[in-house]
Amino acid sequence: MATFKTQIAAARDGIITDAMNAVAQKEYLKPEFIRDETAAGRIVIPANRHHVRLDPIGIGRALSTKINANIGNSATTSGLCEEFEKMKIAIQYGADTVMDLSTGENINEIRARIIAESTVPVGTVPIYQALAMVDDPMDITAELLLEVIEAQAKQGVDYITVHAGLLREHVPLAKKRLIGIVSRGGSILAKWMTRHKKENPLYEHFDRMLEICRAHDVTLSLGDGLRPGCLADASDEAQFAELQALGELVRRSRADGVQAMVEGPGHVPLDQIQMNMEKEDAICDGAPFYILGPVVTDCAPGYDHITSAIGATLGAYYGASMLCYVTPKEHLGLPNVRDVREGVIAYKIAAHAADIALRRPHARDRDDAISRARVTFDWEKQFELALDPEKARALRAEALEETKTHPDVKDGSTHYCTMCGPKFCSMRISQEIGDTD
Amino acid sequence: MATFKTQIAAARDGIITDAMNAVAQKEYLKPEFIRDETAAGRIVIPANRHHVRLDPIGIGRALSTKINANIGNSATTSGLCEEFEKMKIAIQYGADTVMDLSTGENINEIRARIIAESTVPVGTVPIYQALAMVDDPMDITAELLLEVIEAQAKQGVDYITVHAGLLREHVPLAKKRLIGIVSRGGSILAKWMTRHKKENPLYEHFDRMLEICRAHDVTLSLGDGLRPGCLADASDEAQFAELQALGELVRRSRADGVQAMVEGPGHVPLDQIQMNMEKEDAICDGAPFYILGPVVTDCAPGYDHITSAIGATLGAYYGASMLCYVTPKEHLGLPNVRDVREGVIAYKIAAHAADIALRRPHARDRDDAISRARVTFDWEKQFELALDPEKARALRAEALEETKTHPDVKDGSTHYCTMCGPKFCSMRISQEIGDTD
Repeated sequence: MATFKTQIAAARDGIITDAMNAVAQKEYLKPEFIRDETAAGRIVIPANRHHVRLDPIGIGRALSTKINANIGNSATTSGLCEEFEKMKIAIQYGADTVMDLSTGENINEIRARIIAESTVPVGTVPIYQALAMVDDPMDITAELLLEVIEAQAKQGVDYITVHAGLLREHVPLAKKRLIGIVSRGGSILAKWMTRHKKENPLYEHFDRMLEICRAHDVTLSLGDGLRPGCLADASDEAQFAELQALGELVRRSRADGVQAMVEGPGHVPLDQIQMNMEKEDAICDGAPFYILGPVVTDCAPGYDHITSAIGATLGAYYGASMLCYVTPKEHLGLPNVRDVREGVIAYKIAAHAADIALRRPHARDRDDAISRARVTFDWEKQFELALDPEKARALRAEALEETKTHPDVKDGSTHYCTMCGPKFCSMRISQEIGDTD
Repeated sequence: MATFKTQIAAARDGIITDAMNAVAQKEYLKPEFIRDETAAGRIVIPANRHHVRLDPIGIGRALSTKINANIGNSATTSGLCEEFEKMKIAIQYGADTVMDLSTGENINEIRARIIAESTVPVGTVPIYQALAMVDDPMDITAELLLEVIEAQAKQGVDYITVHAGLLREHVPLAKKRLIGIVSRGGSILAKWMTRHKKENPLYEHFDRMLEICRAHDVTLSLGDGLRPGCLADASDEAQFAELQALGELVRRSRADGVQAMVEGPGHVPLDQIQMNMEKEDAICDGAPFYILGPVVTDCAPGYDHITSAIGATLGAYYGASMLCYVTPKEHLGLPNVRDVREGVIAYKIAAHAADIALRRPHARDRDDAISRARVTFDWEKQFELALDPEKARALRAEALEETKTHPDVKDGSTHYCTMCGPKFCSMRISQEIGDTD
């Protein structure tokens, strides 16, 4: 039997895997290029060997921007059916990966179903399951964490978030903050290290974790337990101290034949986003940067899909490879199905806008096609090309409904919208200029 | 009787007007600075002498970013009550100015009521009213346009959009485009010039228009009739040829003691926004730039408040002074009250995020305050500080409702949100770290 090789190990041996070929085709790039970038660790292809239905994707600065949708219940909400519905909606509207962040009941059952059904890579945060197995979070051990990671690896999880770079020496730095530690995993590990006066178990036993990941090709997503949770805490000493540690872990992962990406903030003022992207690139040797937003203002709860889509667009433009969505419920509660949809669309917009600006191959094709459909008043085509056809259709129907009793609207003509009305439609008038010249 | 002076004329005479003092106070800047920038034309204070209830604001690169909400009916929709409701909602959620773009019935009546009630500057596009007074748009004349402008000036309109820089020689340039001319006023004037083989009447009679504006202190908003209507047409020859003409009109306005700002695009890929802002600054001698979005992808109808808020944030960061909102209904129909609210909030986010990044005085105070309220789990304070308190309150209530039957939620504790649940609240855990160290 041939020895199993991870994508990065295969790439280094000069092999172009099926997954690399699939990525090359999707990205309009050559398979050799995908192989070389995967070998260098600048592209990751999260593809657990046990994830049967997976349609592989690549994540990296040279590729189109990916988006992730977090699903999963918390201790107080939601069961299997609703989480599965969230997954379907997320994939339908274009999520490139999903993370199951369940911390409540039936964690194993929910994850098994999600992996069985998902065509996109599935990520998790193993410490959440470990926490569900102990009465007191302070009772978690390195053995328990590794046991959970191995079980998830065997189950088919494609990538895992591990807050292995949050070191004991970083904790005092976070105490200077306005808002402290806002990462769930990060806050628990920080408390654990302080209580037990020990180093982070995920850091201490990093080599054993690498061994598990290598055996199943689980990609590491090196979590930023010290990501800023408000603008005031952005780009501080704590954040960048952890980033240095993450850079070291990237190098160790690659050396061991394990794929790794790095997670990033969070809450960052607009003018610090470019610097943050460049810093990660430099410190982590071009490892794909997977960012959460960032939110660019703290004072719009209920609209954080927008505050963060602004930051995410700029983040992707300046080098982030994957954008973790934020929903309108952020800072308020667990997202429901409607929130998931709104979050995914906002992030498709962010990723797509960045890809256009970066002039990725064929990035603007869809935009040009919908613009041509606008010129010809082909509403059906406009809806088909829309990121959310149902929403576009519903809003136009609503606008027409609001006007249906007006005498000017009598012939069922569709050569206008109710914005300007039939008499002053700029599109129609603009086309008539040619007729009279 | 003392001769009436416009703000720019007064500033040049060394006078600090009440309006300048009001602006200085709002912006945490010195009145002398406001006066000097107004004299230079880099700040405009749209304040028609007949607008009684006006609370003046300043628009300019040195000031906080302003947002405008368009209201007004079209030929097929809405009457006075609904337009008035839109105005109230727009102002309630933070619109700094409103434009009444009515093209349908009761234009005069709607505008009179809006001006009478509005505490913020009111803008219009006078050609819309002129068009409503003729059977065929090709029948409009210079006399009619000037008559309408004068009537509106006397009524108390604070600023008017005039597409005076769209010249006859520019029209052929727009024919090369994918989508032609998308400005209503622009398309009608282009057709008019082509049909009549004459120059733009607003350009031909610009001096007479300046005379009217000077008499009542109406600020000119020099419209971009050739703004791009899709990404493919952005930053083209037509757009920049018109911008050159607008620069000339800015200089003529200032020389004549009339305040002027310049309108800008529209649809612009992310990577061209900075260049567009800098170009306007250079060509128009620092005249305040008043941009519409820009939308950064064409393929998200139903979400253009988001696609354009992304562009608007970057636009403001790179120098735009006022952002004209775009609602979710853009490209689909006339916005209703709900759309107005969503558009205004998206643009408050954009303006505020840019102001934070530009480190304007006190810009981040609200963000830091809401972050402090998050640390103390003071939900009421968080709602009060939110850009849309009602929405934030509703979403949290929805999340709590979805969990109310769960056994873990029994003590009515508010020290968590349903996102992580009470057991894994990072904020609480983060605070406990201090206790054990």
